[in-house]
Amino acid sequence: MDTATTPQPQISFETSPDRYRHWKLAVDGPVATLGMDVREDGGLSPEYRLKLNSYDLGVDIELADAIQRIRFEHPEVHVVVITSLKERIFCAGANIFMLRGSSHAWKVNFCKYTNETRLAIEDASEHSGIKFIAAINGICAGGGYELALACDEILLVDDGNSAVSLPETPLLGVLPGTGGLTRVVDKRKVRRDLADFFGTIAEGIKGKRAVEWRLVDAVYPTSQFKERVQKRANELAALSDRPATGPGISLGALGARVSADAVRYSAVSLDIDRDKRVATLTVRGPDEDTPSTPDAIVVAGDRFWPLRAFRELDDALLRLRVNEPLIGTVVVKTEGDPARVLAVDETVAAHASHWLVREITHFIKRTLKRMDLTSRSFFALIEPGSCFAGTLFELALAADRSYMLDDPDRPNTIRLSPMNTGPLRMSNGLTRLETRFLGDPGRVEELVEEREAFDAQAALDAGLVSFAPDELDWDDEVRLAIEGRAAFSPDALTGMEANLRFAGPETMETKIFGRLTAWQNWIFQRPNAVGEKGALTSYGSQSRPEFDYRRT
Amino acid sequence: MDTATTPQPQISFETSPDRYRHWKLAVDGPVATLGMDVREDGGLSPEYRLKLNSYDLGVDIELADAIQRIRFEHPEVHVVVITSLKERIFCAGANIFMLRGSSHAWKVNFCKYTNETRLAIEDASEHSGIKFIAAINGICAGGGYELALACDEILLVDDGNSAVSLPETPLLGVLPGTGGLTRVVDKRKVRRDLADFFGTIAEGIKGKRAVEWRLVDAVYPTSQFKERVQKRANELAALSDRPATGPGISLGALGARVSADAVRYSAVSLDIDRDKRVATLTVRGPDEDTPSTPDAIVVAGDRFWPLRAFRELDDALLRLRVNEPLIGTVVVKTEGDPARVLAVDETVAAHASHWLVREITHFIKRTLKRMDLTSRSFFALIEPGSCFAGTLFELALAADRSYMLDDPDRPNTIRLSPMNTGPLRMSNGLTRLETRFLGDPGRVEELVEEREAFDAQAALDAGLVSFAPDELDWDDEVRLAIEGRAAFSPDALTGMEANLRFAGPETMETKIFGRLTAWQNWIFQRPNAVGEKGALTSYGSQSRPEFDYRRT
Repeated sequence: MDTATTPQPQISFETSPDRYRHWKLAVDGPVATLGMDVREDGGLSPEYRLKLNSYDLGVDIELADAIQRIRFEHPEVHVVVITSLKERIFCAGANIFMLRGSSHAWKVNFCKYTNETRLAIEDASEHSGIKFIAAINGICAGGGYELALACDEILLVDDGNSAVSLPETPLLGVLPGTGGLTRVVDKRKVRRDLADFFGTIAEGIKGKRAVEWRLVDAVYPTSQFKERVQKRANELAALSDRPATGPGISLGALGARVSADAVRYSAVSLDIDRDKRVATLTVRGPDEDTPSTPDAIVVAGDRFWPLRAFRELDDALLRLRVNEPLIGTVVVKTEGDPARVLAVDETVAAHASHWLVREITHFIKRTLKRMDLTSRSFFALIEPGSCFAGTLFELALAADRSYMLDDPDRPNTIRLSPMNTGPLRMSNGLTRLETRFLGDPGRVEELVEEREAFDAQAALDAGLVSFAPDELDWDDEVRLAIEGRAAFSPDALTGMEANLRFAGPETMETKIFGRLTAWQNWIFQRPNAVGEKGALTSYGSQSRPEFDYRRT
Repeated sequence: MDTATTPQPQISFETSPDRYRHWKLAVDGPVATLGMDVREDGGLSPEYRLKLNSYDLGVDIELADAIQRIRFEHPEVHVVVITSLKERIFCAGANIFMLRGSSHAWKVNFCKYTNETRLAIEDASEHSGIKFIAAINGICAGGGYELALACDEILLVDDGNSAVSLPETPLLGVLPGTGGLTRVVDKRKVRRDLADFFGTIAEGIKGKRAVEWRLVDAVYPTSQFKERVQKRANELAALSDRPATGPGISLGALGARVSADAVRYSAVSLDIDRDKRVATLTVRGPDEDTPSTPDAIVVAGDRFWPLRAFRELDDALLRLRVNEPLIGTVVVKTEGDPARVLAVDETVAAHASHWLVREITHFIKRTLKRMDLTSRSFFALIEPGSCFAGTLFELALAADRSYMLDDPDRPNTIRLSPMNTGPLRMSNGLTRLETRFLGDPGRVEELVEEREAFDAQAALDAGLVSFAPDELDWDDEVRLAIEGRAAFSPDALTGMEANLRFAGPETMETKIFGRLTAWQNWIFQRPNAVGEKGALTSYGSQSRPEFDYRRT
């Protein structure tokens, strides 16, 4: 089942509007239009053609980039209209031939990334004053409708042809994998029996019924469609708290230096030990004083340390996921001056309402969530010379375990900052400290009030680190932990981590990555989908699928 | 991977204490002791031996029965102590050789049932005034510890040997599948990094550290153990609101008449059409007046209609799950006088605080949850002569869709009762009406205030049924819906239903069946667990597992 016919070269997640092949970003005052116009021959692999605005990872990388750039480069944009530049087709969803030819791991990582992109749309809506309208001007199927579901409003043309649909179950024997089922019942609150019906009719639902069932917000005749979309965009734009005018900052190329065993950036390195299946992820704190006013931060732009470091970290995590499947354990380290990290935190906290500071903070938050959702074991090593302070201490909190050296001769501390108690919430809606101390909620407040440096013993007593071996035990204990981890079933670890990392409340977001994704991954393993006669395998061929009808 | 070497005969879920082979139920005033003493040769299949108090489905059927009987037959019991009657071993968890020899579907259904049993323990604690103590007097591994986690308190003997552990990941390459990971971090609020460590050490954790990490509530030396358990049981017993003395009622045999194509009970029938892969589940309302006072209900005992009907329904659902894997769709019908059903509802609501009425209500609730969690498509057909009223209307609400005949010549109504607005909550903590109308919360109140009969058009307008075809369309529309359903991938339907049925909030319970179970099912399909060289396959043999170390 894991026969990947699609070549999987090293994927880069960087792009920019001048290189887009599938999307056109047009900014017109407060309204940006993201026009989908997928090049059939522009897929990541020549083995499939991206017909009917269907997409592969490359298309979604551009979409993610566009949303990111709107946030940072175009503060004057208050509304984004997502529409199709093709006739009669909005988007046919993920390309089936791409899915069919992909390995299990590729399918899973593809869905994870597209889910993160759609959640980034909702994050921009909730936190950044940017509203999204899906202007569905043609057939909108599967992942196409899931993209629309991530928008604030869904407007559908009423042309007798255009419909929204989730045809995955009837046509492909899989689930809509990008949050569709969850958003239909949990976000749009479509009645579950209607959702059940909708989820089984390949042709979808159009017109008035789509509105009555809450699948879309409005339908308009073709003659009025553009005008009504524009009108609604203008109405929503007026509600934004973003700046009325630019300029934004430019997000330059990261300049990753990729070698056989490493990916290196200015503040982040990922060093890979393939024999041990272990990578070391190092984040370096600021090596000089950083700007402390919004104006100076705007001038610094993408060179401002937290934005630079977390853009690099985000890219490193994505490369790790897709390009290094055999690396099971990631050792997380930091290097630098904790005081400089805390100074940045202070600046960020003091100017939290400034548009750029706000964007940077939410970007750090999203990157840390990306780490939470990366199916590798993370062990943080806290050693002399490290700077696990404030925002960077979140890396240790996001790790599955942390080890802190307790060597009185080589002082080594961790520190908290206001960034640990609010702005960097996990998918479950809690901070990492709250999640850590679910059983002892008063502890968070106590710890933050102390706000001093914790040495290894204090950190252990406070529950801020998992283990604090002394200098005699350190090497062996850390080595054994890493070696032991590498020997376990990678699947059991993925499942275990996915359950332990998200204690506490569930949200729509955790539901998408827990319930929905886990079921989809199960289906992606089942012969009824990916076997020789499975529905996904048979799609588009002459043969009809043959099912083992036993229910599980 | 689906090679079942374990024979799977027709399983009956009925038993009684005089027939127990693995448990001893001893009642001593307010404290009952459930002693685990699994017969090695007492498994459902001769192909494995139930060593070290390991269990298979048969062992868990007895446990579920015992808990059920304590609730109904022993109202004077306020505390249940679960312990082992063997030396040095509390429970080794699910039998690995049983799991290894089981089909995928069997593994999944086994885990589902054991999860429901553990949730029934927590249900009794939360709603019935019965507290549970796990008195761990020996090694307690995997499912053994998960059973303990379902109890209110975990007391561990401190004998230098007895430990609690979740060795599934390191030893078997699977997850603890009975809620262990969820309960560790969500119920007991063990810190996630400590849980991560705990989940990877096969030998487990004992003594003081087990208390410090919140894995157990207390440890006592061997010499004091029994006495301390007894003392704590007495303390908890004093807090109960259950009656001080009996008598309870007897739960008699259901007397199911099983034939090739049907299972029939007094108020429930399950008729099976194997060619179409469809079953018809019919529940008949009371056919005479039912008692209306608590005393009369106690006298009626297990013949009181709601208890009788829902015990039969529960048994039918369990048989369907395990014995009829090829039945994908269940048509749900009712027959009888709606007024009689509503009269029962009125009685139950009026005497909700009486211990037996309380037990009956919670049992109905658990049975309906069992339906929510049954991976078959349920279509309710509401036709003349039916009695979808109050409690029985929950069957239509639990169904994936409902069809109501709209024939003015043959009147046919549905009715609500107070049973629809509180006592019968789903796993997500909401009533089925609240879940249905998530997008329009005011609707529930409006509907209940009306409290009159809804004919088909009124029910459709109110959103209480999915479709209301007239007499001309009825046959075709229903037939096409059922035939269409049977043609889809059973796995995609299982995944779709598991996502659509639980809109709204997630709870520990939904997390266990969503996040945890879905991941476990995924792992149960993975070659790293169940392949020729997988960890589950290799366990207990000479060969070590060989993993494909790619992370997913």
